[in-house]
Amino acid sequence: MTSSLNLKASDVKVYSTTRIGCVVMKVVPRSNVIYSFSSKHKPVEHIKIGELVLLETEDALGGQIKTEDASIDKLDWSRVDGATGPVFVEDAKPGDTLVVEILDIKVDEKGVIVTVPKHGILGGKQFNPSTKIIRISDGYIHFSEGVLVRAKPMIGTIGVAPESSEVPSSSLGRHGGNMDVKELTAGTKLYLPVFTEGALFAVGDLHAVQADGELCVSSVEVAGEVLSRFSLIKGKKPKWPILETHDWYAFLACGDTLDEAATCATEVAVESFMREYNWSFEKAYMFGSLAINLEINQVVDPKKGVRAVMSKDFVSLNSLLT
Amino acid sequence: MTSSLNLKASDVKVYSTTRIGCVVMKVVPRSNVIYSFSSKHKPVEHIKIGELVLLETEDALGGQIKTEDASIDKLDWSRVDGATGPVFVEDAKPGDTLVVEILDIKVDEKGVIVTVPKHGILGGKQFNPSTKIIRISDGYIHFSEGVLVRAKPMIGTIGVAPESSEVPSSSLGRHGGNMDVKELTAGTKLYLPVFTEGALFAVGDLHAVQADGELCVSSVEVAGEVLSRFSLIKGKKPKWPILETHDWYAFLACGDTLDEAATCATEVAVESFMREYNWSFEKAYMFGSLAINLEINQVVDPKKGVRAVMSKDFVSLNSLLT
Repeated sequence: MTSSLNLKASDVKVYSTTRIGCVVMKVVPRSNVIYSFSSKHKPVEHIKIGELVLLETEDALGGQIKTEDASIDKLDWSRVDGATGPVFVEDAKPGDTLVVEILDIKVDEKGVIVTVPKHGILGGKQFNPSTKIIRISDGYIHFSEGVLVRAKPMIGTIGVAPESSEVPSSSLGRHGGNMDVKELTAGTKLYLPVFTEGALFAVGDLHAVQADGELCVSSVEVAGEVLSRFSLIKGKKPKWPILETHDWYAFLACGDTLDEAATCATEVAVESFMREYNWSFEKAYMFGSLAINLEINQVVDPKKGVRAVMSKDFVSLNSLLT
Repeated sequence: MTSSLNLKASDVKVYSTTRIGCVVMKVVPRSNVIYSFSSKHKPVEHIKIGELVLLETEDALGGQIKTEDASIDKLDWSRVDGATGPVFVEDAKPGDTLVVEILDIKVDEKGVIVTVPKHGILGGKQFNPSTKIIRISDGYIHFSEGVLVRAKPMIGTIGVAPESSEVPSSSLGRHGGNMDVKELTAGTKLYLPVFTEGALFAVGDLHAVQADGELCVSSVEVAGEVLSRFSLIKGKKPKWPILETHDWYAFLACGDTLDEAATCATEVAVESFMREYNWSFEKAYMFGSLAINLEINQVVDPKKGVRAVMSKDFVSLNSLLT
């Protein structure tokens, strides 16, 4: 039992089969998969605030590719980009913020990466479909003989039921979704606006590592487990999902182009400085040139993603919510 | 005399008036200003390989704004975005790479930042022209009461005469120009393709600090001095300027949109991995999802800038040049 997680002994069940190997309260198996974020989905589990939840996730290709012979030509695309869930978070109401603590992410030892003709940022070039099975061990991605990349497991898809009726889980928006933010790792917090009673949270599409861009359309796609805990901020919400790391907050915006995503991200970040310091638009806009870093999440999903990163030295959480 | 700079005593003049306060060989005063990169400009100085050069630069507003009363409405825009130079680098020939070591950057103690209606990433909003004079001291930008930002002096504009006849110094391209890369600081190296005999190098537009994006169109614009040293790589050149820091190389690409800039940056980075490892396009493209970080330089100049950042663990300089 891990005292830092504030568990009560009476609440606890031990799931000895989980690779995370800690005490958890609820496990959501990866068989509970959805392919859209929507309030129409029936929750597969009810979660209390403060409760620990382990969500098992399938890889983004639906676990269909086990060997390098398995061509993506034969892929059942209806089973791609799923997310595990949704879970109903008790007391979450429209207008609140769902705070998701990402306590741990564990990934399998075998991942897969694919190229898909016409896809990715260089989709305009002629190239072949290809599949690569990748071993992940000792904290490294074994990409090729002598070419090892340090693993940094992150979450590709994470979100809640959106304001609109339904958004495919392959896409993204103000509700989260397939944001592919390389910094969304264990130890971070995500703030999501709640649009539906219970929020209807789901997660999937883990990557053993990803660089900013995810440029070939996939990264090291891998099944795994996400250990989370939820809390709520009542009656206030962010205009876009907010990621919190040790040092900074970032609005995670998206748009049909990177330019549109960058504009959306900037707008909310500048507004936050106006609230934080009671500054005019002009002064906050100036400060943005010094203190808002526009960074690319991904360039290959149906919408492009840009984050506006602000040091905690300059802005507090309260100024990010409205 | 600084032995690490490999100066010969016989070559040295001491310019006691420079704020950098070290021994230099050549000083190019800021009165030598150009407003375009072009082979038509007469060089103001001839520089030998290995020689130290101190280029003094005016701020990007041409030093016209001295007080906060000085409205940008009265600005002479023909004196904006100048660069100091050009200097003729001996032995530089078309097809070579000009290597610019940025040994030091010193900036004045007073900078200026402006908002200009219709400009910057939020130029679609209604706002007023405004001017802010900013004190830079003790390593900090004193932006506002209690709001200090650590100074990180960087170069906004740096380049050589382009392949085409002339490019305004406010713009950017394969020759460099107004790239506004926040990482282009003292201690870095820039690799520029040479298109013209002598390269015709110029530099300007220093910022005391800038975040990725330079989103309001200006940052802390400041006069200053750049201490550089040149070398050449003969008969090979990069397709886009390359920035080298201690840990990584980055192609600095641009385009009419961020998406176009990101595509251009990715293309050359993926080609570099193909050369480095003798990999197929598909394999290098996959690796890009793990090991090429697409990062935003700026979103407000005539063309947008994106850098493709690659760790030195994975690529060598030789693979970046063709």
